[in-house]
Amino acid sequence: MTQAVQKVGKPFKRILLTGAAGGLGKVLRDRIKPWADVVRLSDVVDMGEAREGEEIVQCDLADKETVIKLLEGVDAVLHFGGVSTEKPFEPIMQANILGVANLYEALHKAGTKRVIFASSNHAIGYHRTTEMLDANSPTRPDSYYGLSKVFGEQMSRYYYDRFGIETVCVRIGSSFPEPANKRMMSTYLSYDDLTELLRCALFAPRVGHTIVYGMSDNDSVWWDNRLVAHLGFKPKDSSRTFAHLFPDSAEFPAPDDVTTIYQGGKFLLDGPQY
Amino acid sequence: MTQAVQKVGKPFKRILLTGAAGGLGKVLRDRIKPWADVVRLSDVVDMGEAREGEEIVQCDLADKETVIKLLEGVDAVLHFGGVSTEKPFEPIMQANILGVANLYEALHKAGTKRVIFASSNHAIGYHRTTEMLDANSPTRPDSYYGLSKVFGEQMSRYYYDRFGIETVCVRIGSSFPEPANKRMMSTYLSYDDLTELLRCALFAPRVGHTIVYGMSDNDSVWWDNRLVAHLGFKPKDSSRTFAHLFPDSAEFPAPDDVTTIYQGGKFLLDGPQY
Amino acid sequence: MTQAVQKVGKPFKRILLTGAAGGLGKVLRDRIKPWADVVRLSDVVDMGEAREGEEIVQCDLADKETVIKLLEGVDAVLHFGGVSTEKPFEPIMQANILGVANLYEALHKAGTKRVIFASSNHAIGYHRTTEMLDANSPTRPDSYYGLSKVFGEQMSRYYYDRFGIETVCVRIGSSFPEPANKRMMSTYLSYDDLTELLRCALFAPRVGHTIVYGMSDNDSVWWDNRLVAHLGFKPKDSSRTFAHLFPDSAEFPAPDDVTTIYQGGKFLLDGPQY
Amino acid sequence: MTQAVQKVGKPFKRILLTGAAGGLGKVLRDRIKPWADVVRLSDVVDMGEAREGEEIVQCDLADKETVIKLLEGVDAVLHFGGVSTEKPFEPIMQANILGVANLYEALHKAGTKRVIFASSNHAIGYHRTTEMLDANSPTRPDSYYGLSKVFGEQMSRYYYDRFGIETVCVRIGSSFPEPANKRMMSTYLSYDDLTELLRCALFAPRVGHTIVYGMSDNDSVWWDNRLVAHLGFKPKDSSRTFAHLFPDSAEFPAPDDVTTIYQGGKFLLDGPQY
Amino acid sequence: MTQAVQKVGKPFKRILLTGAAGGLGKVLRDRIKPWADVVRLSDVVDMGEAREGEEIVQCDLADKETVIKLLEGVDAVLHFGGVSTEKPFEPIMQANILGVANLYEALHKAGTKRVIFASSNHAIGYHRTTEMLDANSPTRPDSYYGLSKVFGEQMSRYYYDRFGIETVCVRIGSSFPEPANKRMMSTYLSYDDLTELLRCALFAPRVGHTIVYGMSDNDSVWWDNRLVAHLGFKPKDSSRTFAHLFPDSAEFPAPDDVTTIYQGGKFLLDGPQY
Amino acid sequence: MTQAVQKVGKPFKRILLTGAAGGLGKVLRDRIKPWADVVRLSDVVDMGEAREGEEIVQCDLADKETVIKLLEGVDAVLHFGGVSTEKPFEPIMQANILGVANLYEALHKAGTKRVIFASSNHAIGYHRTTEMLDANSPTRPDSYYGLSKVFGEQMSRYYYDRFGIETVCVRIGSSFPEPANKRMMSTYLSYDDLTELLRCALFAPRVGHTIVYGMSDNDSVWWDNRLVAHLGFKPKDSSRTFAHLFPDSAEFPAPDDVTTIYQGGKFLLDGPQY
Repeated sequence: MTQAVQKVGKPFKRILLTGAAGGLGKVLRDRIKPWADVVRLSDVVDMGEAREGEEIVQCDLADKETVIKLLEGVDAVLHFGGVSTEKPFEPIMQANILGVANLYEALHKAGTKRVIFASSNHAIGYHRTTEMLDANSPTRPDSYYGLSKVFGEQMSRYYYDRFGIETVCVRIGSSFPEPANKRMMSTYLSYDDLTELLRCALFAPRVGHTIVYGMSDNDSVWWDNRLVAHLGFKPKDSSRTFAHLFPDSAEFPAPDDVTTIYQGGKFLLDGPQY
Repeated sequence: MTQAVQKVGKPFKRILLTGAAGGLGKVLRDRIKPWADVVRLSDVVDMGEAREGEEIVQCDLADKETVIKLLEGVDAVLHFGGVSTEKPFEPIMQANILGVANLYEALHKAGTKRVIFASSNHAIGYHRTTEMLDANSPTRPDSYYGLSKVFGEQMSRYYYDRFGIETVCVRIGSSFPEPANKRMMSTYLSYDDLTELLRCALFAPRVGHTIVYGMSDNDSVWWDNRLVAHLGFKPKDSSRTFAHLFPDSAEFPAPDDVTTIYQGGKFLLDGPQY
Repeated sequence: MTQAVQKVGKPFKRILLTGAAGGLGKVLRDRIKPWADVVRLSDVVDMGEAREGEEIVQCDLADKETVIKLLEGVDAVLHFGGVSTEKPFEPIMQANILGVANLYEALHKAGTKRVIFASSNHAIGYHRTTEMLDANSPTRPDSYYGLSKVFGEQMSRYYYDRFGIETVCVRIGSSFPEPANKRMMSTYLSYDDLTELLRCALFAPRVGHTIVYGMSDNDSVWWDNRLVAHLGFKPKDSSRTFAHLFPDSAEFPAPDDVTTIYQGGKFLLDGPQY
Repeated sequence: MTQAVQKVGKPFKRILLTGAAGGLGKVLRDRIKPWADVVRLSDVVDMGEAREGEEIVQCDLADKETVIKLLEGVDAVLHFGGVSTEKPFEPIMQANILGVANLYEALHKAGTKRVIFASSNHAIGYHRTTEMLDANSPTRPDSYYGLSKVFGEQMSRYYYDRFGIETVCVRIGSSFPEPANKRMMSTYLSYDDLTELLRCALFAPRVGHTIVYGMSDNDSVWWDNRLVAHLGFKPKDSSRTFAHLFPDSAEFPAPDDVTTIYQGGKFLLDGPQY
Repeated sequence: MTQAVQKVGKPFKRILLTGAAGGLGKVLRDRIKPWADVVRLSDVVDMGEAREGEEIVQCDLADKETVIKLLEGVDAVLHFGGVSTEKPFEPIMQANILGVANLYEALHKAGTKRVIFASSNHAIGYHRTTEMLDANSPTRPDSYYGLSKVFGEQMSRYYYDRFGIETVCVRIGSSFPEPANKRMMSTYLSYDDLTELLRCALFAPRVGHTIVYGMSDNDSVWWDNRLVAHLGFKPKDSSRTFAHLFPDSAEFPAPDDVTTIYQGGKFLLDGPQY
Repeated sequence: MTQAVQKVGKPFKRILLTGAAGGLGKVLRDRIKPWADVVRLSDVVDMGEAREGEEIVQCDLADKETVIKLLEGVDAVLHFGGVSTEKPFEPIMQANILGVANLYEALHKAGTKRVIFASSNHAIGYHRTTEMLDANSPTRPDSYYGLSKVFGEQMSRYYYDRFGIETVCVRIGSSFPEPANKRMMSTYLSYDDLTELLRCALFAPRVGHTIVYGMSDNDSVWWDNRLVAHLGFKPKDSSRTFAHLFPDSAEFPAPDDVTTIYQGGKFLLDGPQY
């Protein structure tokens, strides 16, 4: 039980980042390099040349054989791939449902033991903005997209119960350079806090199957990470830095506007129509 | 607010039973006739000639256009179609995930307002047999099949939150002529009790989105329907009728056998392998 | 600690029944006689001559001095007095708020130690009919009347916390000869079960401050008395006796009718207008 | 869904502050001016001349017709009026029960949509000082005054359920220049924090029916606002500034003194006597 | 996974009953014989000659070496030994604390896998008679005796967490020929129901670490076995058979008598003195 | 109810610190002096000469008569005595079970009213490191030592329920100069924070029976003191000061190592063997 600090070099040999050409993928590409000797980047689109310490694999997650190769030699996965907006059901199913099924089958074969799954607040978007949620709250998807994220969370739960593969599901709020509307004052997650949350999720001694809300230290929030303090995530940023963008005197959607009532915001206006 | 008894004839004009050629479909075919002028029966296999009061439609649930036609004129749906055992992921996805997405899109178009969804105890099969579950317990799928049932429950929740379409998800235990093993002493649901549960779910004044466990009045149980007593379901049968089949002196799987530890039973031995 | 059965005669010397000329008051007048040497009956209207074993006091509960006299020599109270339907606020305040304040002040002075307060399901009428409530559920009054019942429950709680005066608040469902509409199939309380519930509430060794739902053993219910089994109340009747009055083929208010959505039923159509 | 910042000037046209001549009313009179073009001040006593940006209305809340006029043209209400100490029941009923009934009837007529109700810790004063409460804890009034505050909270809940009128009930602790005794080290609410809490309650995009505890960031507390973080209230002050007033070496009421056992403090010594 | 009924003869080879000369030990001696080829009986006092199918071992549970021998060859234990009334601490510690430590050490060595531990309602006797408890309620011992039962429950939990040894802790109410006082109307457990509960606890496929309340189907109860329905225990008897012994007109301890307030009854008058 | 600051000198006349020669005893010896005129120090080993303001008593807690003398004249107790590591059961029983029984009997006789009991995280060590515990979580002892701490907590609960003697049970994490391994990053309690926690526990106006986790303001934690904020304990230190000792690149026990899975860490490798 002595815990000598024997290891040298970077903690992981190879981390896979899927969706590496997407919005958050680009943000993370360099930030995750300290964590692994090699960062493997995948996306369905062409990403050009690999830089030092990178491997680049173009890959459609719906193609199982390719995904199985993608995972070979991978210690840990940051799964940011797939569709990230509301769309008709079938493309979401291919990318986010079949995609995640292929991913877990592949990482199980590969012996990967730690996964970070980019879930979304849209898995719980039909809860009201006057409710406080935690990791145990029931899911309430607000869109096909949200449904696919619930599916991914459940797939990861299944692989944990059956094979002990650990996953942290991060229900990301709004990770952008700054809040684009009043709602995002509650859901804002700075890029630095996102990175720190991923670091915590990768390096916590044990995570089992953890569901955590991805948000900065905002003043007004709807989510409470109290139950998952084992991760050790302490956000450093806050949307209050941007409070001047949304003064009390501005006009906002009315309290009984559907985007104000429910946490999912404008996703409730997309998808199958009323 | 007077509630004069004005209506005559059968309560529904047309009920759709999917999976009508399956095990429970055959059981239900005649039992549901008193509830509707017309019973529309569908299955992916050929069902022969329609009998009086029936309409028969052969239909693959993964084919959206066909499903849209299938729902036309339908007041209420008993959704027993799809795959009902563990299989590789893709066929389950086609029948149970794409199938249920097509179904809800179609019934929303058709104006159907009440759905009974045949969910399964395998949506919660990774809970232990020493735990007591109710409608609020978190799902713990024990198989791809179980995952697809969780997905169907969530799809129905989404259509309820968005469009007010009411669904009762019945997590069916073991609905067979008699318990086939000791585990089924806890999960047994007689055909009569199944029929009564469906009747309650169809005729309760309001069900919203209800999750109910489908079990008879067995002595040893893992599930409690206390939270959904608005359905008015009172089982009349019990597995204790069959207690003589499983005397104390018989040999059963050991307490630390995976099929004894978890509620899902032998489904934990199927699916992706250890 | 020996518990010799020494007492003879009736258990109480004098029970007061308020609202004795009201609907339930008349039902109870004779049924409660075995419990006390003298039954004192009060109402705001004239009740004629007292019969054997009775005392009759005409009394407006809003008149404190009269109420103080009314309680003299009273061992236990069954408080059924006051307004029992929706009305403008001021008459409800006089009868049900000032009335209950006077009552507790008076019974505290008189040394009365056990009170049964006829509360109402309208104290929780804005809960949905798909919710299961128990004694700990938050109140959701559906009317000024319901508000006054919540007030009475809180007044009795206050006198319990401060002076140890024990009250059982009975949230009466629908106590009529038979269910008058489909909703009452869930809320029905037979006269015999009402009487038995009162008996249990009076004679349980200790009740502290108990909230119990007054309903018979109906099939479909929204309330669970599990938490107050110390009362020992076991209903013998059930609305299922009247199931034939409300066949599945009859027409009822729609699932999205306000009287179907909420437990309070038609009280939601009374009161201050939409 | 674009959220252009179009509005100019102050956020509200007219805010009504009742109880404007009371202790907290005077504190708030100038502090709330930035929030509205016009601040209407009312009290039962004469308040002298209106200053710039003010309207002054002398008004007895128990007089419905006057209250209806008082609310005309009012966007939002800060209801600090009524009796604020323990008294015999009838004056409390007039000011705090009839008063609040009149107020809600009037503001419903006037189309007012947001109310801040000055509730009190005496609504929960019979909880013990070793208990942690949140917005869902049951009420335990410690006085007639506390009972009237519970009534006001329930009235506001009723108007929310029925008409969608949003209210924030602030269970104010001890809002004074400094803690006057050891108990107030737990219940202290600075004037600045009170003001900020009111601002949050007025300007949060949606509040539904919210119950929040009014306290500063004190070290020892009995209340947790975790469930209502949607308000975005972050106190800046703390009673620890005044810790030197109550050193460990001082003498305080004994642990088994009724004012130490229960949260309500000395209110438990007022009211109807033991 | 086939569950052929192959075993013949009695279910267990050897069951140990400790405390066999005690009140309940004598009741059980013959009733448990169908469950094992051999019943080993132990007690600290002499029990005379063994009858057919019995082994008799005189044994002080505080003597570890003897206890280790006592458990040799034992499949399952019914632990009814030790002190069963309030006494000074040291004799209780020897028999019930050191005794249970010796027992678990010995049965772990012996490879015994299922234990029934006769715990007591005095493990929770300081809960009020107006509270409803279940298997998750916190313990509130009412005596040194009650403390020793809590200790036994925790010891068995420890051996389950560490070694997987399954124990059912039965918090026995009042198991006598008939209720001896009014309190026992709530706590009564008939001998037949006790026997059936033990049978369920021994033969349930898996029990893990289960806490169950030992009571018959009484009308007034304080305990709910809802969470442990996996045991399949359905009591057949009820104290209502004896209701005539305690008519409403009899005199009982007052509602504010300590034996009426708390579940532990007269144990609260024993032990260290007030 | 005036709270004049009348008392002079130190708050307590005499505090007893047991286990004064142990690791934490030595740390506390001088730190607690400001709280009492006299600090009585006891231990089973010789402690040499008393310094100013001290009394020294060598005492075996298993010897009741000596313990009774030890408590004479004692206002408050800090109970740090007994065995503090895993050992065979009997010595733990003598020191920690008989010892604590003697202590409470003695302090009850002496009229002592406030006790701080040094409990341990090993009372809950069989909870997983992915679980969040609070004061209400069930105990899960991970050793005989942990069992003895659960016993002490229950003994103090019993004396509170029976005699109103107040105890704060501090489940101490890892109170050392710095974290000795990665696990202690979660359980670290600095000496200053320990001292402050004891001060809060001694001087809070009322503590009843409080269970609090002894930890500093660490980033990753498994315990939440939210429910006991009445103590007013705000840690000032954090294990994050020592984060450099355990960089992400170091090697730690695997996620499925028993010392990583469970909160108790290496105590799970001691005690009775697997």
